[in-house]
Amino acid sequence: MEARCPAPLAITTGEPAGIGPELTLMLAAQGALPAGSVAIGDPQMLRQRASALSLEVDIFEVSPSQTLPAQRSTTLPVWPVELAESAVPGELNTANSRYVLETLALAVTACQAGQAAAMVTAPLHKGVIIDAGFSGFTGHTEWLRDACGVDEVVMMLATDRALHSQAPGWQGSGDMRVALATTHLPLREVADAITFERIVRISRLLEADLRQQFGLAAPRIAVCGLNPHAGEGGHLGREELDIIIPALDALCQEGMAITGPFPADTLFTPRHLAGVDAVLAMYHDQGLAVLKYAGFGQAANITLGLPLVRTSVDHGTALTLAGKGIADPGSLQVALSLARRLADQRAVSSG
Amino acid sequence: MEARCPAPLAITTGEPAGIGPELTLMLAAQGALPAGSVAIGDPQMLRQRASALSLEVDIFEVSPSQTLPAQRSTTLPVWPVELAESAVPGELNTANSRYVLETLALAVTACQAGQAAAMVTAPLHKGVIIDAGFSGFTGHTEWLRDACGVDEVVMMLATDRALHSQAPGWQGSGDMRVALATTHLPLREVADAITFERIVRISRLLEADLRQQFGLAAPRIAVCGLNPHAGEGGHLGREELDIIIPALDALCQEGMAITGPFPADTLFTPRHLAGVDAVLAMYHDQGLAVLKYAGFGQAANITLGLPLVRTSVDHGTALTLAGKGIADPGSLQVALSLARRLADQRAVSSG
Repeated sequence: MEARCPAPLAITTGEPAGIGPELTLMLAAQGALPAGSVAIGDPQMLRQRASALSLEVDIFEVSPSQTLPAQRSTTLPVWPVELAESAVPGELNTANSRYVLETLALAVTACQAGQAAAMVTAPLHKGVIIDAGFSGFTGHTEWLRDACGVDEVVMMLATDRALHSQAPGWQGSGDMRVALATTHLPLREVADAITFERIVRISRLLEADLRQQFGLAAPRIAVCGLNPHAGEGGHLGREELDIIIPALDALCQEGMAITGPFPADTLFTPRHLAGVDAVLAMYHDQGLAVLKYAGFGQAANITLGLPLVRTSVDHGTALTLAGKGIADPGSLQVALSLARRLADQRAVSSG
Repeated sequence: MEARCPAPLAITTGEPAGIGPELTLMLAAQGALPAGSVAIGDPQMLRQRASALSLEVDIFEVSPSQTLPAQRSTTLPVWPVELAESAVPGELNTANSRYVLETLALAVTACQAGQAAAMVTAPLHKGVIIDAGFSGFTGHTEWLRDACGVDEVVMMLATDRALHSQAPGWQGSGDMRVALATTHLPLREVADAITFERIVRISRLLEADLRQQFGLAAPRIAVCGLNPHAGEGGHLGREELDIIIPALDALCQEGMAITGPFPADTLFTPRHLAGVDAVLAMYHDQGLAVLKYAGFGQAANITLGLPLVRTSVDHGTALTLAGKGIADPGSLQVALSLARRLADQRAVSSG
């Protein structure tokens, strides 16, 4: 009887003119990729980038149907996808946009076929993909939602205790997780987007994946108010009274351990976070400024509600840094570490 | 020639049914009040509260025109203001609302007369003051603005390195200061309140008091965008392009060291905060969730733009905790420590 290796973590290296390829290579050169990681991208481009940055990485091609051979830690297996034109760091090229989407499609197919345990995405550049003619493209998360055929997903950011508990000055007693009720909306559109139905739907997705992906038997969710001081009894806005409180009441009736709405500037203090598995913030900056501060700028993005495990870096393509080897691979490392934990948990949950 | 003591810090003990009186007494009993602190309130009420909580504090009355005698550290001098009716912890009473305002008026008068170096305010309860017939009352900050005859003030929250650098897990290399462009507005009103004129006015007040009150020769201010990702070049809202960037350009032309707008979830990371003396956030929860997390829930509120030094706790009256001696005096301690530093700095600045 053979020992079975877990399926690999598939890293989509993202926009080839951005920092995604070199972050992957930097972790590989440091021996910091989790065992069983595989990159998806153009092998030639990755070799050139490694050479230009003097990163000693042993890059070799393999197909998703092959089992990964035992590797040294500085080895990087690559599932190849070919660039249309050679990529120059910092210079976007619409000719390579289809390539970026092909790397994502390969990752999804591999996850669905059990050839990958999870997908971890390096940053892509929304603008160049739209400019290339994919006019409906609005981002990784929505593309994955549609590719997987689900109606709604939830964006959650998390720090990773496993990595950060060793960091100097670490103050957390656990992971901080913040899910968002709304994501990339102009601030003036946020209040109208907060509806009873949305709070209920997002909370249910969040709770389900805290159970299934994080292995929490009874997840405890704390919810931020929309307004300052959570509306102060209606003096500073009525959405808490009219929408959020009725939605939380309905969810409590279903048996969910969900509490709130709390003022964001009270909830995000160590004392109040102590008994909370995830915070549901009403909008982007309410939740993510503190999350990223708490994670020392090294947090990862997790898409909940998908039939596969997907984590992502929490930053963009950083075109001005690309090709210089000076970008920080911390968030990619967190994304990989979380993907491994989530994939292992999902394997346990599904028996 | 006599050695002159610095003028005292005047603590308005706030709503008599709330936690303000006992927080003051707790610090006094711990010997944790800065030298030269004086409480403003009803001496009888303070004695009763100390007795009920078994706090050993030597309370004695003195008038603002008298020099404070040399004291032991557990002594609490009180500038007396008489309650209308006796106060019961946890039970609001409109009969005592005038008393609360009288304590504020005494503090302002003493600051203006040079009898107090600064005023430090414990929490009051807005609702009961309005219910008592002071229908125009909207809070400490606005009352002080009007009492001092200025047009606009700026709310800034700060942590205090002097206190927190000893705390376990402290990760900051300096103080974090966050000023707000808008304060207690429902979220749906925030976008319309962000105008060119407001950004310019608030930034000027902020910069002037960072010089005068904090002694910074060339304050560096970093400004948050209004929208997620600071609008992402107009894709997520246009206020950055149409309003904030032109306002910052105008301020730079005046010679101000002001930069932005930055995404809030990028700016509030240790790396980006390193070269910044204060952050200007566009609204309450964008700035204060992270500030209070960073300050371990112990930050203080500073009103900029007044002709006197005023700091405040960053919390409310906590009626359900009042009279139990379990509330945390940390924020009052930060407010006192900051008031002392600011008053000393102002004395230096004004020669």
